[in-house]
This record gives sequence, structure tokens and C-alpha cells, in this order.
Amino acid sequence: MFHEIKLGVLGAGQLGKMLAEAASPWSFRLYGLDPDPHAPARDLYCSFTCGDFRDFQTVLDFGRKMDIITIEIEHVNTEALEILEKEGVQVHPCSKAITTIKDKGLQKEFYKNQNIPTSPFILIDNRKEIITLVHSGQLEFPFVQKSRTAGYDGKGVKIISTPEDLLEAFDTPSIIEQKANIDKELAIIVSRNIKGETASFPVVEMLFNEKANLVENLLFPANISEDIKIQCQQIATKIINGLDMCGILAVEFFLQKDGSLWVNESAPRPHNSGHYTIEACTTSQYQQHLRAILGLPLGNTSAIVPYSMMINILGEDGYSGLPHYEGISEVLEIESTFLHIYGKKETKPYRKMGHINIIGSSLDSIQKKAIIISEKFKVTSK
Amino acid sequence: MFHEIKLGVLGAGQLGKMLAEAASPWSFRLYGLDPDPHAPARDLYCSFTCGDFRDFQTVLDFGRKMDIITIEIEHVNTEALEILEKEGVQVHPCSKAITTIKDKGLQKEFYKNQNIPTSPFILIDNRKEIITLVHSGQLEFPFVQKSRTAGYDGKGVKIISTPEDLLEAFDTPSIIEQKANIDKELAIIVSRNIKGETASFPVVEMLFNEKANLVENLLFPANISEDIKIQCQQIATKIINGLDMCGILAVEFFLQKDGSLWVNESAPRPHNSGHYTIEACTTSQYQQHLRAILGLPLGNTSAIVPYSMMINILGEDGYSGLPHYEGISEVLEIESTFLHIYGKKETKPYRKMGHINIIGSSLDSIQKKAIIISEKFKVTSK
Repeated sequence: MFHEIKLGVLGAGQLGKMLAEAASPWSFRLYGLDPDPHAPARDLYCSFTCGDFRDFQTVLDFGRKMDIITIEIEHVNTEALEILEKEGVQVHPCSKAITTIKDKGLQKEFYKNQNIPTSPFILIDNRKEIITLVHSGQLEFPFVQKSRTAGYDGKGVKIISTPEDLLEAFDTPSIIEQKANIDKELAIIVSRNIKGETASFPVVEMLFNEKANLVENLLFPANISEDIKIQCQQIATKIINGLDMCGILAVEFFLQKDGSLWVNESAPRPHNSGHYTIEACTTSQYQQHLRAILGLPLGNTSAIVPYSMMINILGEDGYSGLPHYEGISEVLEIESTFLHIYGKKETKPYRKMGHINIIGSSLDSIQKKAIIISEKFKVTSK
Repeated sequence: MFHEIKLGVLGAGQLGKMLAEAASPWSFRLYGLDPDPHAPARDLYCSFTCGDFRDFQTVLDFGRKMDIITIEIEHVNTEALEILEKEGVQVHPCSKAITTIKDKGLQKEFYKNQNIPTSPFILIDNRKEIITLVHSGQLEFPFVQKSRTAGYDGKGVKIISTPEDLLEAFDTPSIIEQKANIDKELAIIVSRNIKGETASFPVVEMLFNEKANLVENLLFPANISEDIKIQCQQIATKIINGLDMCGILAVEFFLQKDGSLWVNESAPRPHNSGHYTIEACTTSQYQQHLRAILGLPLGNTSAIVPYSMMINILGEDGYSGLPHYEGISEVLEIESTFLHIYGKKETKPYRKMGHINIIGSSLDSIQKKAIIISEKFKVTSK
């Protein structure tokens, strides 16, 4: 009986919150672990353990009380997860997949070994190595440096275009990769259950906030050819099969100006690029993740509306502290608009504080709504 | 700031649970009061008080800590609510509306005074009065007896067709009403905010389980003429305006074989007949109730799919105790089907244990799915 399954989640951020919200209509409740005592999902979990999911013993102790362990962040202690797997706890995604993904170096090598298209890269250990490579002519500007383990949400990524930029380079183990000649950035969520069955959601297009290096808006459907859509689906399916994981995987792509696709990176969990599925698809990415890891049939992934846009709500620049949400009434006045506030205790500049989904029957109408929302809705502080 | 509003809910049943689920994406949380320590909404409220919402002092004490009070059941202590209103607590729906509705005698008199079409009726105090009326020829078989205050979910209603049935009549203050010549039973949810603006959801058709005297399935759209739909909307709007209440109101109708409409009864709160709105409409009845009582704009009430069916999941006859849900995987395998389990601690014969919504583009496809669901999904006990 699935109500008796104890499902533990490493992390209690907004992704954990929305996972708990997807489980609630089934009266299925989750157990959570997070170092932040005010984490957004805290009150939605039936039990919350305040502790560090990067700590070996903490994860081991937490996991031993669970039947299934999942994650809402990949920066967790995978050594503990390996032991839990040996002890018979189901870990979805498996520790091996998390280990591969959370180190961007291993992730790139995985793509290379699996013949997944991605930008050419080299692995380096420190800044000095980069400087040596540049001076010896083996590395040419511009290129991209990504810290192997540091970041997400655009942190830990630098574009290095000039000798001056080298001074700003990270002095940590990194990947150095060729800068893509980007036409569009795309993303897809693919799911895989215990039986190895897969199902992919529609491809979406990401629109960036340059200043924050964060996805600002996300558009469904991506304005690309059917052929590119199929390629995205095939590549994402190849990755999730290659990782031999259960759950959902988000894959981000660069569609280059020459029409070729490069995988940028993947995340083996619910992802920002799948938020639109909550209102736009038959099954949300969150419910799909639950279906996959609980051994239930995968849900239908098709959209129920012709168009959807997701607008990330980022903390306004210049404001920190207790959040103040401006424009709630104005947003709720706009038809077919869905407000998601993560309930974070504090806002910071560009912090993800929520998102707004819009659904509609024409691109024009949702774009107009998106403009109004961007103007009216702001997270400042008290 | 609406996040600081303390909203207290009298009751923590499935309607409270779904209200909390609707509030969760906004990171808005509710305070609840219910006598059942295992009530379904308990863990979804940010604070739960175990106490009787029929008790004057309990409601008064609970309400004094709140900014707004709402209900998920109308059988609450309205004397306490009246005092709370005088003390400045917002009570939605207002105590006067609840008082009118919760006594079916007052409710019928309200309809009569407002020229709302409803079955002819008389008020009686005990069984003896009924017998006297029958013997004197003032009352003819068949007729319907409804206890003024006892029941909901089909309890407290008797159809009296023969002298023998008289022995089974309730010996309590009741209404005696003419039996409708029913073609269809219809329902509509209408909403009204603090400004007096109203919005009505689509009309639905109810299909009954004769044995349990409970709505078994519910179909959107009702298979009726546009004219009848408009009449339903107009009557429901007249009732909510007449009650001068804020929140949502469910109105149940008898469409008679001669084409005339009679109001059967109303409920000033989220209602079984509005469950389909969770997945079938832009705004759910629950979110609409929150919008109305929190002073937010009313949401768009239109359906986003051509057809929807709601199937009540009732506890199987012959089973009591800890519930066992049979057929979860089978139901989740059926496309565009949404499982709602209320998380009640115990099942009983015909107890409402959950519901399943189906959405689709053809009536035929959802009817086929409904048949499979009815066959596969059962709540038994362990």
C-alpha cells in the first residue's frame, strides 16, 4: 500500500514544497531533511529533520528510517546514499546518477562517453592552469569556466573573453568549455520509472535575465522545428537511460545558430524549467516524479493548453530581509494566471521567491499578460 | 499584506483539506478547529485546535485569535460568530447567512420570501403533527420529510409514500415538502466577494447512488438547454445576494419534468458538486472561496476542458476501519484522471473517502473511463 511508504526528501526548498503539494491530493505525505529551519517545504512535510544533507552521518541516519529516498537538490552526500542502497533503501535517482550529475566534470565526461552532443571541454584544477593554457595558445578567448561542484542557479559560471577576465576566473577544479553560438536555450523534462519506461514532457524555451544569469521567463511551446523537438526528446531519453535512474531529469540545451544541439547540463530532479507543467500539462513534473519513484504508472505528459509561460519571481535588486509581495491583487486579476509563492523567510536580490504561470490560447495574449505581470509584481522587503 | 491575515476555518474535513491545498501555492496557511483529532485537514493547517465548532465558547475563543473566520461545514455555533462579528472579526459567510442555511426551515422560508422557486412546504415540530395532517387529509402521499437541522450527505431526508412509512418518519422539527417530479438534479457554485461582485461556475448534473442517497457521479457540462443554465445562474446569484454573504455558495436544483426549476437546497461553502473545478476550471471553487473572503479579485470560472466527470469514492458496503485503497495504480494508468484521497482515518459504508476527477474532450471517453474506475477502485478495510 503506497500510503505506508516512507518517502524521504533531501532538501526542503521550493521544489520540495511543490513535490509535497503534488502528493497532498493523494493524502501522501513526505519526510524531509534540510539544514535551513525555515525551509519552504518544512511545514508541508509530515516530518522535518533539521540537518545537513551534505553530511554523511546525517543522511545515513535520516535515510535508514525511510523506504525511499529522493532529492530536490543534487548537492547531497552520495557516499551515504550508496550505503543506504546496499542496505536496501530505494534511492531515486540512484546515488551513481547523482554522483555523475553533481560534479560537472563527471557529467561532461558522461556525455562524452555516451556520445551525447555537448560543447568540447577540458578539466582543470585551478586558475593557474587556465592561464598556462591561454599563454601557451592551447586555449582561446572566449571560453566558459564552470566550477565542477559549486553552483546552481547561474552561480559558478563565468564567461572569460579577455585577459582581464582571467583575474576573475575561479581558482577551483572546473571545466573549461567552448562558448556555444546560441540561437535559443531549450529545456525538457524526461521521466523514467522503476520498470525503465520513459515519458518526456514538451520542449520549452528559456528566456534569460542577463544581469542575474537566471532564467527569467520560460515559454511553452518552444518556437523550434519538430525535428529539433524530437532530437531533444531523444537525447534526454538517452541521458536518463544512460544514468539508469528513476525519477525525472531536466536537460538544458543550447540550440546553436548552425542548427546543432549541445546539452548544456542536466538535473536529476524537478526543475525550474518544469514549473509550467503544474497548470499546463495533464501531469505535473512533481506528480510525475512521485509516480516514477513510487512505482506507479507514468502520467500523460501532454499539454492541456496551446501556450504557457512561466515567469520567475526574483527578489528585487536592492532589497533584503522579510519579503513584501507587491501586486498580488493585480496579478490575480489577470485571467488564467497562477501565482506560486515559495514562502521563503527572506528575500535577496535575484533570489527565486516564486513563479507565475500563465496559460492561454494565443502567444500574443500570454506575452501581453507577462509584460503586465513583470511591471506589477515585485518582491521587495519590509 | 495578505500573508499576515489569520484565516480560521471551522472544520477540518476534506473541504478544509482542499481549501488548504488551494492556499498552499500562495504560501498562505490556514488555522483550523475541529472536534476530530484525526480530521483530514489537520496536518495541512498551520495550526490546529481540537475542539467542537458547535460549542459557543470554543468558537468564540478560537475566533478571537483570527482576522477572518470561514467554515467548511454550516453546523457551527452561529451565536459565537455573531459576537465575533460585533467584535470586528470578519466572518465569511456572515453568521446571518449560516443561520439561515443551517436550519432547513429558515432556508425554505428565505426562498419563499425572496421569490426563489422551491417546492411547496410546511414546517412541523414532530411526527405526531405529520400523522394528524395525513389523517385530516391536509397532506397526501408521497411527500418528503427533511429534518430542519440534522443532516447533510443525504442524512435526515425521508421520502414518505405509504402509511407504513409514517412509522419511520423523524420525530423532530422538520419541513414537509412536495416531492419533485425530477428530470435531472443540477448544481452550481456561485461566488461573491466583499465588494458584492459575483461570478458563477458552470452548471453540473448530479447522478445519484440510490442506495446511499448520495451523489455518486457529477457531470460537466449538464446536458440541459442554455436557458436552464442561465436560470440556474440567475437564481443562484439572487440567493447569494439575498444572503448578503461573501464566499462561495453551492445551490442544488431539481429540474422537473415540466421544465421548471426548484431549488432543493444551498450550502454556503465549498461543496461536493464543485470538486470538478479543481482540474476542470481556470479557478477552483477552493481558490475562488479564498479570493472572495480575502478581498482578492474573483477568478475566472470558465472550464478549460470540454467535459469533466467527478466520481465520489465511497467506502464499500461491509467494510469499516482502517482504509485500504484498491486500484490506485489502475486509476493512475487512465489518462487525464485525477485522484483525490481525503486521508480519513477510518472507512465506513458509503463514507466519502475521496473523489476522482476525469477531464476529456468527449463525453464518450470520460464515461468509459468512469466505468473502469468504478469497477477498479474500491475502499475496503485492512
